[in-house]
Amino acid sequence: MTSISSAPDAAATARAFHALFAEISACGATPGGGITRLCASAEDGQARRLFANSTREAGADILVDGVGNQFAIFPLADGPGAPLVMLGSHLDSQPKAGRFDGTYGVVAAAAIGAALMRARRAGETFGADFCAVNWTGEEGARFRPSLLGSGAYAGARRIEEALSSRDDAGITLREALDGIGFLGTDRPPPLPACYLELHVEQGLVLEKAKASIGIVTRNWGAAKIDVVFTGEQAHTGPTPMPRRRDALLAAAYLIAEVREIAERWPGRFHSSVGRILVEPNSPNVVPARVELSVELRSADNALLTDAALMAEAAITEAAERAGVVAAIPGRTLRPIRSLPEAVCDLVAACAEETSLRSLRMDTVAGHDAISLLGQCPTGIVFVPSVGGIAHNEAELTRPADLEAGLSVGLLAAWRLCRAGGSPERALLFRRPNDAFGGER
Amino acid sequence: MTSISSAPDAAATARAFHALFAEISACGATPGGGITRLCASAEDGQARRLFANSTREAGADILVDGVGNQFAIFPLADGPGAPLVMLGSHLDSQPKAGRFDGTYGVVAAAAIGAALMRARRAGETFGADFCAVNWTGEEGARFRPSLLGSGAYAGARRIEEALSSRDDAGITLREALDGIGFLGTDRPPPLPACYLELHVEQGLVLEKAKASIGIVTRNWGAAKIDVVFTGEQAHTGPTPMPRRRDALLAAAYLIAEVREIAERWPGRFHSSVGRILVEPNSPNVVPARVELSVELRSADNALLTDAALMAEAAITEAAERAGVVAAIPGRTLRPIRSLPEAVCDLVAACAEETSLRSLRMDTVAGHDAISLLGQCPTGIVFVPSVGGIAHNEAELTRPADLEAGLSVGLLAAWRLCRAGGSPERALLFRRPNDAFGGER
Repeated sequence: MTSISSAPDAAATARAFHALFAEISACGATPGGGITRLCASAEDGQARRLFANSTREAGADILVDGVGNQFAIFPLADGPGAPLVMLGSHLDSQPKAGRFDGTYGVVAAAAIGAALMRARRAGETFGADFCAVNWTGEEGARFRPSLLGSGAYAGARRIEEALSSRDDAGITLREALDGIGFLGTDRPPPLPACYLELHVEQGLVLEKAKASIGIVTRNWGAAKIDVVFTGEQAHTGPTPMPRRRDALLAAAYLIAEVREIAERWPGRFHSSVGRILVEPNSPNVVPARVELSVELRSADNALLTDAALMAEAAITEAAERAGVVAAIPGRTLRPIRSLPEAVCDLVAACAEETSLRSLRMDTVAGHDAISLLGQCPTGIVFVPSVGGIAHNEAELTRPADLEAGLSVGLLAAWRLCRAGGSPERALLFRRPNDAFGGER
Repeated sequence: MTSISSAPDAAATARAFHALFAEISACGATPGGGITRLCASAEDGQARRLFANSTREAGADILVDGVGNQFAIFPLADGPGAPLVMLGSHLDSQPKAGRFDGTYGVVAAAAIGAALMRARRAGETFGADFCAVNWTGEEGARFRPSLLGSGAYAGARRIEEALSSRDDAGITLREALDGIGFLGTDRPPPLPACYLELHVEQGLVLEKAKASIGIVTRNWGAAKIDVVFTGEQAHTGPTPMPRRRDALLAAAYLIAEVREIAERWPGRFHSSVGRILVEPNSPNVVPARVELSVELRSADNALLTDAALMAEAAITEAAERAGVVAAIPGRTLRPIRSLPEAVCDLVAACAEETSLRSLRMDTVAGHDAISLLGQCPTGIVFVPSVGGIAHNEAELTRPADLEAGLSVGLLAAWRLCRAGGSPERALLFRRPNDAFGGER
């Protein structure tokens, strides 16, 4: 059996990947070597057009649905109604973020789709079509919540609800998508027979283990508690201290306590407050209102429940200490879930076949794949992040690791498409030496 | 001796005051009954035009200097080169603020100028001209620092420096003033022989003492420490807790500690953090950079020094605990100072003459008068704030109290203008019953 990384087409796929990745990395490039490509911004529009052009040239039909999700469908099977194998991720980013988060999975899917299409044209037969997808608004940075496009596709929220999400300037997602020409009207494809997402790890597990492929078996739970502290606007000068009802002070007590909670379970629990809105946020004015979200993550359900109770107690206590009123307008829970074994086994087999060291591991961060979990067989393949740096311009995955993930993704997609989309059947397929015709 | 509040012209002055005050209160009026009239905004432009029109109609010449300060000069004395008596305050406001802060002093000065002008036309002779002034950007809400226009006039900062101050949208004060037509080119008048400012107290002292006139004898010192915490942008999910360098966490520790410091000296020390800038301020991102200002106020120099040292230690400690770097790009100190006794005595005499209960007291908040302190004899007259509420839409001073302050201001201004601007000489003057000719 030939390792796919030494096959001629693996090299062509890698070249196609790097070329498109470099082009897309220029969309929203920052002086610090990263990108700022907020959802439905002009830069996002540029990246979306590059993705569409590249996949269209490779033989895909492009659909854009009502929330701007882009589906590049490569017709590999004979006739309509074939099952679909879907790979993808997102092109939007956090502010001053890295080039790899999300973009890696989308560009890899585009390159893999092109490779499969070449194989099809060279005479290979497939039992499923292939779709490379770019989900709208995964980050939740400009439009909230996160996993917006994949969540809408998977039925977690209505299209109208997603489109009415507003950024801090009051612009709706509908207006922003319309502005860049990506408010689509296409009916999205049906749920795939299998969904796979290549993503950078954003953590240190692979690097420490010196493994190049992470097979995600479990998704950490995430509890998010939205908090509003309402105090009273006052002059910071003459207002006597005991009369002040300072909403920012309550937020400070809470932020410190949320960190304190994390100290109880080292390594098993993560917590944070990343975003805070202060009103009126003016010098000489005691803050009247603060809005923030407490984020709690763990792979242990009992622990997550305990932590959420502690956080709610901390919210009440912080409000009391600062003499303000606390409200909790929203709570969301992304439950702890396992990813299907058959998909994990398929990825492991593909890594083994390409002689790559793989590791089964958790994902702490949410990814679009999590939106589809439970709806269809779903897998996540991680590649190492240098130093675990993420959501930062210095984020880096080395070319060899990018290509390792690409090889595994290509092989898994090839097997899945051969097997009509079923991960169980794909496990039985082996790649014949002559399956790919090399470059043409 | 007749109380001025029963004199016909006091009633006319009060009517003129209320009419202009109502008109100006409509500029930037909020649904909550307050105003949002940020410095050099369109609403500020409207208010400025109302002030200019009203004083011009009453006989004043209007000058607008290079930072947009408006001087309405009423020629009361014979010929040029007469000393100047100046009253005023500011028309800009905090976001969602009250109608009285600043506006009271400007509108009162306009009404007093008009009354003096009528007296002049009725045959009264004066040894000084009168100027009603509206200072640009007292609040520091949109353009920093506070006391911007009065500080530039008094020589605390250069015009160019003031004009290059930027709001959060990157607009300079120069551009904003130009946009509303108030980037003036007039040379401002020379320093006045005496400056007086009527202002709402914004505290509880007068209300508790059931006094209607506060005579400010001392200005609390204010130390401001600008702080920047620099951490590292990271993913709030997979990034291990011990590796996080969370700038917002450092800010939270500091905000809590700044409040703690105030608990040591109840009633004698005020502290606050009113404004905080967080980058990138996005969900799922560990904050990389936080900018804030620590504000410390006291009338006790030793205490203020101790508190500033404690705050600096707290900054270092907060940074260490959160694993971030702290920088202090700026420190400002507004020293504790006494206001000149002669001006205080004059105000006290005017209050006594109008049968109003007065009280000598501190100002905790800074006012434009503080910019002029040390440059010329300067006084501040307070009127009560209901419940001490300030920098809040619910800010209120009752009409009777507004008129009480107006009476004292009118009488003090009349005496000062009669006395060629000298507060010492003004103390010797008494208002003749027939000085004001009533309405015409």
